[in-house]
Formats: sequence, structure tokens, C-alpha cells
Amino acid sequence: MFGFGKGKDEKKAEPAKAAPAPAAAPVAPGVATAVPVASAIPRGPMNGLMQDWKLTVDKVIDHAFQNHGQREIVTRTVEGPIVRSTYADLYYRSRQVSNALLADGVQKGDRIATLAWNTTRHIETWYGTMCIGAVLHTLNPRLFPEQIAWIINHAEDTHVFYDITFQPIIEAIKDKVPSVKHWVVLTDAAHKPQTTMNVRTYEEYIAGKSTDVVWGDFPEDTACGLCYTSGTTGDPKGVLYSHRSNVLHTLIGMQHDAIGIGAKDTVLPVVPMFHANAWGIAFSAPAVGSKLVLPGAKMDGESIYQLLNDEKVTFTAAVPTVWLMLLQHLEGANLKLPLLKRVVIGGSAVPERILRAFEENYDVEVVHAWGMTEMSPLGSLGAMTENVMAQDRETVVRYKLKQGRAPFGVEMKTINDEGTLLPRDGKTAGRLVVRGPAVAKGYFKNAGGNILDDQGFFDTGDVANLDEHGYMQITDRAKDVIKSGGEWISSIDIENFAVGHPAVANAAAIGLPHPKWDERPLLIIELKPGAAATGDEILNFLNGKIAKWWMPDDVAFVEKIPLGATGKINKLALRATFKDHKLPTIQAAE
Amino acid sequence: MFGFGKGKDEKKAEPAKAAPAPAAAPVAPGVATAVPVASAIPRGPMNGLMQDWKLTVDKVIDHAFQNHGQREIVTRTVEGPIVRSTYADLYYRSRQVSNALLADGVQKGDRIATLAWNTTRHIETWYGTMCIGAVLHTLNPRLFPEQIAWIINHAEDTHVFYDITFQPIIEAIKDKVPSVKHWVVLTDAAHKPQTTMNVRTYEEYIAGKSTDVVWGDFPEDTACGLCYTSGTTGDPKGVLYSHRSNVLHTLIGMQHDAIGIGAKDTVLPVVPMFHANAWGIAFSAPAVGSKLVLPGAKMDGESIYQLLNDEKVTFTAAVPTVWLMLLQHLEGANLKLPLLKRVVIGGSAVPERILRAFEENYDVEVVHAWGMTEMSPLGSLGAMTENVMAQDRETVVRYKLKQGRAPFGVEMKTINDEGTLLPRDGKTAGRLVVRGPAVAKGYFKNAGGNILDDQGFFDTGDVANLDEHGYMQITDRAKDVIKSGGEWISSIDIENFAVGHPAVANAAAIGLPHPKWDERPLLIIELKPGAAATGDEILNFLNGKIAKWWMPDDVAFVEKIPLGATGKINKLALRATFKDHKLPTIQAAE
Repeated sequence: MFGFGKGKDEKKAEPAKAAPAPAAAPVAPGVATAVPVASAIPRGPMNGLMQDWKLTVDKVIDHAFQNHGQREIVTRTVEGPIVRSTYADLYYRSRQVSNALLADGVQKGDRIATLAWNTTRHIETWYGTMCIGAVLHTLNPRLFPEQIAWIINHAEDTHVFYDITFQPIIEAIKDKVPSVKHWVVLTDAAHKPQTTMNVRTYEEYIAGKSTDVVWGDFPEDTACGLCYTSGTTGDPKGVLYSHRSNVLHTLIGMQHDAIGIGAKDTVLPVVPMFHANAWGIAFSAPAVGSKLVLPGAKMDGESIYQLLNDEKVTFTAAVPTVWLMLLQHLEGANLKLPLLKRVVIGGSAVPERILRAFEENYDVEVVHAWGMTEMSPLGSLGAMTENVMAQDRETVVRYKLKQGRAPFGVEMKTINDEGTLLPRDGKTAGRLVVRGPAVAKGYFKNAGGNILDDQGFFDTGDVANLDEHGYMQITDRAKDVIKSGGEWISSIDIENFAVGHPAVANAAAIGLPHPKWDERPLLIIELKPGAAATGDEILNFLNGKIAKWWMPDDVAFVEKIPLGATGKINKLALRATFKDHKLPTIQAAE
Repeated sequence: MFGFGKGKDEKKAEPAKAAPAPAAAPVAPGVATAVPVASAIPRGPMNGLMQDWKLTVDKVIDHAFQNHGQREIVTRTVEGPIVRSTYADLYYRSRQVSNALLADGVQKGDRIATLAWNTTRHIETWYGTMCIGAVLHTLNPRLFPEQIAWIINHAEDTHVFYDITFQPIIEAIKDKVPSVKHWVVLTDAAHKPQTTMNVRTYEEYIAGKSTDVVWGDFPEDTACGLCYTSGTTGDPKGVLYSHRSNVLHTLIGMQHDAIGIGAKDTVLPVVPMFHANAWGIAFSAPAVGSKLVLPGAKMDGESIYQLLNDEKVTFTAAVPTVWLMLLQHLEGANLKLPLLKRVVIGGSAVPERILRAFEENYDVEVVHAWGMTEMSPLGSLGAMTENVMAQDRETVVRYKLKQGRAPFGVEMKTINDEGTLLPRDGKTAGRLVVRGPAVAKGYFKNAGGNILDDQGFFDTGDVANLDEHGYMQITDRAKDVIKSGGEWISSIDIENFAVGHPAVANAAAIGLPHPKWDERPLLIIELKPGAAATGDEILNFLNGKIAKWWMPDDVAFVEKIPLGATGKINKLALRATFKDHKLPTIQAAE
């Protein structure tokens, strides 16, 4: 006998009924009628009596090994060929990594860095490090060598595991990072790069190592991973994940309306592990037994299409740039995506063209996601609610272009500058602050000091609104918002409408000081080659599209709007250029 | 600027690239070339720097309120009419319950009992109790009044909230439960049952109470819920859930391959809250923002169909009995289930006829589930893997008739009597033992003493096998298994084949002592009215269907096989009847 609600040796007094319980049940034969009064226990707070099962990430890979040992992992190697392995292979080789690290004298809390693409060797290093209580530190190879060296020094990494393609970066920094005692290149002897450095290949490193090792013998709050965010103001800062936060982030991300993958899925995380933990997929895929496809160094449209098609991928995730390249390739070669079901897009806002192309031309559901390194990184995901899906397609598209909804485990709210809670009306914008078990409470070595408010919320630095269905929409960065008469004007909204004018190539709105309103918007326009327009024509065009009091007080024309490194408008430069610009003395609408 | 992998005020050295990183990146203008060596920190274990976000169930209802406040809850009331409310209503009324309990002097750790069907008032009482650190104790109204009284006394409940239909039970026990100081009947003044007892109606109880209350100000290990399992051997035992175990169980259940519901779903938990927490749905539905449909006291086929159809239910869960009644109603009235997508069936093994009817006649996916009160209760769920789905329909059906796979967060293994780990080959049966954050480590007031082995595993009392795809299949109860020559024979398997014989109405296999083999099987047969068969004919029929050494040593015929209270074979009675039965001295096949 087995089943829910039944203990061992269970006996019920009468058959389960669907009808209401008996009005006056007869006394069962053999049931004692004397009702013993149990011994009393002291009154007061008490703990539950459930198992002390620590939330440590070795449980994830152990689960994959036990339940999905033969499920495939496919890697496009950095050396070139596609290689195939399994979760059982991953489990055993991770254990060899653990023993190799222990043989080097690695202790709990030591930082082990990787400079690597998404490959099975990278994931082996990941689990091999974390599961013995050392800290896996993903380095971003897109940074300058000097920045990488600064971060390694700050983290005091003892080991660096790196892909062969990064040998030049390693050569450039090797003499500047005294904490690093061990260099391991993620390849085999045949592909070892030429170098005079004392470098071991990964295959040499783990060869002959035992698979017998104790994993997870530490508290769940133990540090597990480290990832730096870099800022214009101040030095890069390290986010130090714990085992507990990673396991909870994995569970949060596994919800149907979040990443929501299952054992039937084949998952391609194009988003790199050094880019905020591949959005958790290096944990969630083994936790559910998805087939895992790893793209290595190649993220061009043709390479990604090849993996999607050959490996029958059903779920993938990356930044918009990757999808622009893929769509270009699909359109150029007239290809389809019959097997792909869902794509999560984050890293920056999803352009409408990408959303529509996936959903309307390729029948692939787009899930718009938002997050931060400080959030492990998932913050919100755009799975639809029933109320929204019931509306017309254009309304649905508008919801899909929002940044999504917080899954259970992420608390979000918007507040004004005084800290007052703002309504969830889909309109009122405020500072977006977040709280949760996978949100940072501080940075490594206390860089930046206390980063939480007195209720424990972390300020994302974004300005956003929340709506009645739970959707969050970023309207600006806090530093770019224009504060007029105590209210906030979204620079992004003005810009989005302005670029709709046929003569406008690019537009930027910045706040300039105003004696009465604190700030008022100046709209800066870059015209298309050969096009012409006046300030009044531009303002006329905006009329009716934005609130009256959002109307820019002036329009300035520039030959070229300066862009930052990532292609976004450099407002810092624009504010410097226009710092002495005098706004006309028009009166803002009240 | 916003997105993954980006901190506040983030700046990147160069545009994100899809191609491999630059072989030798130039030194960026303005980037300091001097690499500062950061101040060292002491070596050794360290904690992560993530927020201390306690896993308490107030977070669940708070999430529903914040993100899904207007999502509907529909209840078929015990009084009769269908009523509609929202998660916002649930949130505010739960807070009123909290204040009403506090006004009665309820303290953290006090036990508050419910004797109630699934209704919104029951869920309000549930959250109102748990969120202030008191313990919600669900009583099973299907027990005899004496058993209910015994359990109330053991739990020392101070309050009992009950449905109007249970007034007779309450009258029968009221003088036998001295700990109960407060009786609250879950209705309004107009529907108050006639009684001389000092009873308040629920609506009187919460009327005028403030919605202002502090929730969740206690450690996450705090006791949260209490549910008794009753056994033939010994007294009922209480499983004491913690806030942490309930939140983790909710997250575990929300995985795609487990309960896997989302905001687009409309969910009907037919399984009662007193039946192991409605399999977690009273937590998971608000946590994801599903529309919630509650059946009250009516679980007959017509009533359930009405809710499924009128409320556009997409997901439901109940024991097989409920589905037999529904299928009968559907077939009789020639109805369809066009909107229902998935049904979770647990509590006892899913009969093949139910599985095929749902999947083949109504296009509803069946998920076979298994669990125990001691497991909160989810243990395994039968979501398909890709490897299994790729096989032919009959193979898939065989996998679907297994008890499913453990989700991440449940550890399962099978061991023999010596504690040796058995292979996951889909054949070798052994004791099923489990471990996890939502598995009991002991019973309330230490009833039964230590229940874990030295590795922390809990013995489920079931005998099962596990296979390479992670599926678990119960083959017997440990106490019913027949131990022959050190190997185990599944009584259930023999019985299942025997009832396939055209003359057989029912069959039971029990082990009888054997001098050489320890035990050997005796097969006991109840013939169909008017049918005839010999023991040899029955054994002949089994030949080739089961292993030679499983062949019963003898066949006995009885007029009627005795059934227990839940309709299952009473093997205790059969063992008593046949205790002196002499097996023929045939030699078991070796």
C-alpha cells in the first residue's frame, strides 16, 4: 500500500469517500473509545521536524548523475570538433578536478578563476571547484587584459583555467598577477599552445586523478562563486554567490514561467557562463536532466543555427546581438526553426523586430528577461499571464516588450526619491529595488560598503514601472531620468518617439537645470544624411505622443550623437557638451 | 542601461562580440596600466555575500498579493453557491485571521486545527495561522471521531476551525478534547448550524479585524504545519512541517516536470488540503499566480466536471477514485474535456484504464505521482523524458504506469536488507529510502523515535525499483514482499498476472515459511461467480509470465478474499487464515 497521505502500515477507518464525511460516523469495531490525553509539551516557539538537507550545489550534479546519467552533453570545442559526453562523465570528471585542486593544496574559500567559453571542460571545472568549497571565479575575456589582471589581483585567484584562444591575454597578464600559482589550459597535449610559461593542459591536470572525493561537507552559506561587475564610477566589484543562493536561484529559475525547462528539453545556453552564470543554466539543465548543448567560442549565426538544427534544440538563451546574427543567417539562407520552442532574451531590451521575427516568422516563443550579476542574475521573465494572453496581438506584443514578471523568490518594488512605495499601475516610474535569497547584500571585500536599504532592498539603478499583472518595464537608468517638478520624465520614452520621425537618425534626451522645475528636457537630434527638420517640426511630431509636461523645452541638432562602447548613447559626454546650454524661457505645462 | 552581467554604471571596454575575444587586445586609452595588488584577506572558509532572505510561507502569499492580486479564486462553498474572490482578498482576510488568533492569545508554536474541505476560508485560515508562527494542523474528517479526538489531544490544538457539515463530529468529540478553547465554524451567521456549543462563525470571528499584522518574524526552521499519519501498528504520528520545508517543497513542486503550473493555468486541487497539503497546491498556485478553483465538499463526477468546464480548468490533481467517477460521468453524458491539459494522479497506483481514457479519449496528459505525508508529500512525478517519449506508445504507457521520477530536491535510492545500494536497472527491487529538505526527520513529540538511517535516509516502507531514466516503480509494500532464498518476490506482480485469468475475480499472494527458502509464495484465488479452475490451470496460466522461481508453490481457493477499509486486500487476515497451511514439498526452481 502506498500513496499520499499515508504513513507506514497505514489503515483507514473507512473507504475514502468523495461525498461529504459521515454525519455521525459509527464507532469502528476495535477502535478504543477511551481517548488518551497526550502528555503536554511546553508552550512556545518550536522548530519543524524536517531533514537538515543543506542547499549545496553538489546536490545538483549528484541529482543529474543519479537520475540522468546517460543524458547527453554536446560541446563545440574551442579546438574545433563537436564532442559528446554525458552527465555521468561530467560527474566523474568534476570529481577528478576536485582531487587535482586538492592535490595543489586548494582549501575551502580559495578562488579558482576561469577565462573560458561554455564547454563541458568549463562546467567540470565549475563543479569540481564549487563542490569542495572553493570559489569558482568567472573572468570576462571581453575586458582589457589590464582589467582582467586587476580583477585577478583583487580576487587573489590561485588558479586560472583558460581556453587556448586566450593564451595571448594570459601572456600579457602573467607577470602582473602574483597570487596565481597554477595555470591550466583547457585542452589536451595535442592542442597545447606554444608558450614558455609553466602551464599544464587540463587533460594532464586531471589524468589519473581519483573520482573518490567528499563533496559538500560545509554549511550552505559557504561562498561558491564570484563574478565582477565593472563600473564607470569606481573599481570593478565582486558578487560572491553562496551555495544556498545558487541552489535557490536554480529552483527559482526552474519554475514554469521562468526558465522552465524539463527532461524533454534540449538546451543551448549561448549566454556565457562568465556572463552572470549563463543565467543559471549550468545549474538548471543538470537539475532537470535536459540535454545540454554548449557553443564553445562560436556564436555567429551559421554556427548557432547548425547546433540548433543538428542537436534538435528546444530552448536557448542569449543577448539580442546573437539573435540578430542568427536571424540574418536564417533570412539569408531561407532556413526555418521547426524544433526550437522557446528563446529567452536578456542582457538588453528585446528589439521589437527580433520579437516579431521569432514569434511571427519562426513560431518560436520569446521570453524577455531582465536581471543583474547582483541577482544571480534572474530578476524577471516575460512569461504571459492568462489575462494578457486573452488580449489582441498588438497588446500582447506591448507586454512582451516589457522586461517580464518577477518569479516567486524575487521581490520587486518601485519607490520615489523619498523611499515612498509607488503604485503598480503600469505608469508611475520609480527606482526599482529588489530583495531575495539570490540578491547580493554586499560586494567582495566590502567594496562599496553597505548596499541595502533599511528594509534590505538593493537598488538596481534602474527606473521602472510595475503593472497590475506583475510586469515590470524599465523606463530609464536612474542617472538618466529627467526630474521635473518632483516628477520623473523618461529619457528613453522621448527618444523612442523622436526616432520615429522620418528625418531623425538618432535622438537623446537629457535633463538641464531649470530654476523652477529643477530639470527640464533638452532633446538632441542627429539627422539622417541629407535630411532636414526644424526643432518645431520635431516637437510637433511628439505632440500627442507624450504627456504635455514631458515636452522638451528645446531641441538641439548635432552632426553625430556620441555612442559608448556598447553602442548606447554616451549621455555623460552629451551632458558635458550641453552643460552651458540655456533653455528658452518657455513655461512647462502644469 | 540595464541587463544581465552588468552592474550599476557599467562600462565595457569594447562592444560585446560573438566571435572569440581579441587575440591581443590593445591597451584602452584611459585605462590605468599599473595593476594594483588588492589587499589580501585571510585564507580559509568564507560565506557568500547574498541576502538573508528567510524561507517562510508568508513570502508565498505576499508574492501572490503583489504580482497576482486580481487573479481569481473560485470556491464551491460547503453552503452551496459558487463564490469568487481574489488573491488580494485572500491576503487581506488571512491577515484578519492572524489578528483574530492573536486576539485569542495565540502564540508562536500553538497548534490550530482545521476540519475542512478545500475552500477559500480554509486557505485563509491556513495562511492566517502559519504566517504568525502558529502551526496549522489539518484533521482528516474521514477518520472516526474517536481517532480525531485522539489526534487533537496529542497535538494539543487550541482552536478547531470546521465546516458546517462536520457539526455532528464536533458534537461527538467536544467533551473529549480539553485543550480546545475555541471552536470556529467556517461559515456566516445565516448558515450557522444549530448547536448549544459556544461556537463562533468564521465571518463573526474575523469581522472588523485589522489587516495590519507582522508576518514572518521568526527563523525559517519554525514549525508551520502538522499532519498525522495513522498506522495499524501503533498510534497516529504527526509530521511537523517547517516554513523552510514548505517553501522548498513549493519550489521543488513548481519545476516543469513536477507540478509545473504557471500564471496561465487554472488549477483545481480536488485532493484535499488535509490529504498531505493538497500535494502542495495551496502553496504553488498562489506562488505562480494560477487561477485557483476549489471544490468544497463535492467530488462526484458531475460536480467536478462542472467546475472543469465552467472555470476552464487546465490542471487538476486527485486520487484515482475521483477520476473513475469523473470518467463514468463523461462517458454517460458523452462529454469532452477540451480545455483540461494535465491531470496529476496519486494516492494509489494509476489504473491503466484511467491512464488510457484520459490520454487516448480526452487528450489529457496524465502525470502519475507518488509521495507520502512524511515527504510533504511529493516524492516522484511521471513527466516523460525525451528518451522514453521517443519509444512506441505501449512502452510509453508502461513508463507512465510507473510511479514517476524524483524531482531535484528529492533523493531516492533502493537498498537491500543489508543496506547495500542496488543498481538502477529497472528490475532489482529493494527498500525505497528517501532524503530531502521536505522529508521528515522525526515525528511530533518524538513518536517512533529516530526514523533516519545513519546517512539520513527515511525508509518509505515501500519496495521499488529504479531505472536508468530515473523512473521509480513500486513493486510491493515491504511487509508484503515474499523473501525466497535471499531474493524478493513481488506479491503485487503475481496478483496482477493471476487476475488476468478469465475465471479469477481476485488474487492474493502471501509468503509462507519454508525450511530451505525462508519463504515461498502461496497464491489465494477468489473465482468469479459460476467460474471454475484448478490450481494447475492457474499456475499454467502464470507460466512464462513470471520468473520460474516466483511460481507459487501452491494455490488455495477461497469464497471471498477479505478487503481492508480502502478496498485493498487484507493480507494480515489472509496470513492469519493460512498460517498453518502446509506447502507441498515441491522444489522451487533454482
